[in-house]
Amino acid sequence: MSLMLGIDLGGTNLRAGLVKRDGHVVARASLPLADRTPTAVIRQIVETVRHLQSSSGERAAAIGVGVAGLVEPSSGTVLRSPNLPEWREVPLRDLLAREFNVPLALDNDANAQAVAEARLGAGRGHRHFVLLTLGSGVGGGLILEGKPFHGDRGFAGEVGHIVFDPEGPSCGCGGRGCWELYAASRAFALHASRLSGEEREDLLRAAGVDLADLTPKISARLAEEGNGAALALWEMFGRALGIGIATLVNALDVMTFLIGGGIARSFERFAGAARASALAHTYPCHAEHLLLKPAALGDDAGIIGAALQAFEGCGRSS
Amino acid sequence: MSLMLGIDLGGTNLRAGLVKRDGHVVARASLPLADRTPTAVIRQIVETVRHLQSSSGERAAAIGVGVAGLVEPSSGTVLRSPNLPEWREVPLRDLLAREFNVPLALDNDANAQAVAEARLGAGRGHRHFVLLTLGSGVGGGLILEGKPFHGDRGFAGEVGHIVFDPEGPSCGCGGRGCWELYAASRAFALHASRLSGEEREDLLRAAGVDLADLTPKISARLAEEGNGAALALWEMFGRALGIGIATLVNALDVMTFLIGGGIARSFERFAGAARASALAHTYPCHAEHLLLKPAALGDDAGIIGAALQAFEGCGRSS
Repeated sequence: MSLMLGIDLGGTNLRAGLVKRDGHVVARASLPLADRTPTAVIRQIVETVRHLQSSSGERAAAIGVGVAGLVEPSSGTVLRSPNLPEWREVPLRDLLAREFNVPLALDNDANAQAVAEARLGAGRGHRHFVLLTLGSGVGGGLILEGKPFHGDRGFAGEVGHIVFDPEGPSCGCGGRGCWELYAASRAFALHASRLSGEEREDLLRAAGVDLADLTPKISARLAEEGNGAALALWEMFGRALGIGIATLVNALDVMTFLIGGGIARSFERFAGAARASALAHTYPCHAEHLLLKPAALGDDAGIIGAALQAFEGCGRSS
Repeated sequence: MSLMLGIDLGGTNLRAGLVKRDGHVVARASLPLADRTPTAVIRQIVETVRHLQSSSGERAAAIGVGVAGLVEPSSGTVLRSPNLPEWREVPLRDLLAREFNVPLALDNDANAQAVAEARLGAGRGHRHFVLLTLGSGVGGGLILEGKPFHGDRGFAGEVGHIVFDPEGPSCGCGGRGCWELYAASRAFALHASRLSGEEREDLLRAAGVDLADLTPKISARLAEEGNGAALALWEMFGRALGIGIATLVNALDVMTFLIGGGIARSFERFAGAARASALAHTYPCHAEHLLLKPAALGDDAGIIGAALQAFEGCGRSS
């Protein structure tokens, strides 16, 4: 049985793996991006793929790539990537095709992860679900009718830019008050700024950082220690997360939300508040159906999903 | 070729029509609901259908019903209907089946209208679109991959309850600050309350009504007369409409929005502001693709769509 190569290009790390049809990762590599220019990243991808294939003695029949950013699958172009600022309309598929003589499939990283969760992870048995990846932003992958939903040009799932507060702070997308300002890593500083002065000062003293540097990781450590203000921050974070979930429930009647990304490690801290707040903003008939659960595949989801998309792409005539 | 019967049960009117496969309405009836209790409405439906069939000498091979409200197509139940407060979990399909010995299909009215627009109206040629019906609320019908998208239980498209302002006024759905409070008929009073005191008083004097009674119709008449405050109200309405559209664009990458419902008569008054505000809250790459256009089928959309769903239902084995 042939192997596929899955590549997960995040904003800070490159992961790659040789993956079997059943999702088993035969060999993997994970390394920080040394230089974020398109030329350097592409060189790093090429070297990583060659190294994986030569060291394992296996060759991939096709390559799937998931990229954190706005990806147009039809043309194989990365339009932009929030954490790779120099990437603007990079024809990544064509550039990789010069190096590898195999079929190449390109998609957004959250879509790839959602495919992996649908086939092998926490999405199995759900006809529809939304994967939310909570990290520096809120990424989203939509599985509708059992398949990734891409929309008109492949940008579906940019749920981090659901408008949370039309008058809110500016966002890198060009808009204002986007959901991810309230429900991803930068949200902790924002929510902390809304604590009372005393609570906030106690929190920052315990954290040992300035307000702007308050991260989910620090907030998780403080909550673990029983810090009341940190626990309140996770409540606020959960409530904001739930409001965007309510919008998706109302618009799509999708009841299953898988939560992935680094912040999902603190799932138990925010899931209750998120669910309660989502239900406070939807019809009561949704109450017994709404399901929030952690994604199952962890850091491997991106490479597995990209590889599965390569398998599925090879099954099509295109 | 056989005919289908399409029924459009709104909150105030009942429409019914005998419809051909090509969407041509052979005979139609439109009448106000005399009494809104389930028993009375069902009797009115039965009488209307019998009258249509006997006066035309035609019989329908199947019946499709679109209802303004939360409808569970699989069980044929109307869970609730905002303008028919006594309707709670009414098994409408079974109740009608006692009277008519033909297959019956039940769906939400906006979904039915979206199907009509997809096959015969302004949605033709669009693989994905959202129909927004602007009236007492914001109804929505999603056509994704060329088909109506229903979600887990058939409630997809309740876009009027996208959370617009988490701290906003209460909504009949149980939530707060829902989009339809800002972008449907009640929004005119709300937006007028935000005008300066003087502007508001001038507006209400010209309108000849109290603030709470300010309707889109009155606002349209005043705008027609060149009233500056009324023109400003339509701007505010358009901006609020655009913000919910931005949320849908970001989440779904659906670029085509058809605008129906009574307020769509003033399309030219608000469409520019809606488009500008949607683009201010989305990635710049959407600018040349976003399309807002009026729905094409007017008051017949509901009966045509319900009838087409009956045709399509009959083509299935279920």
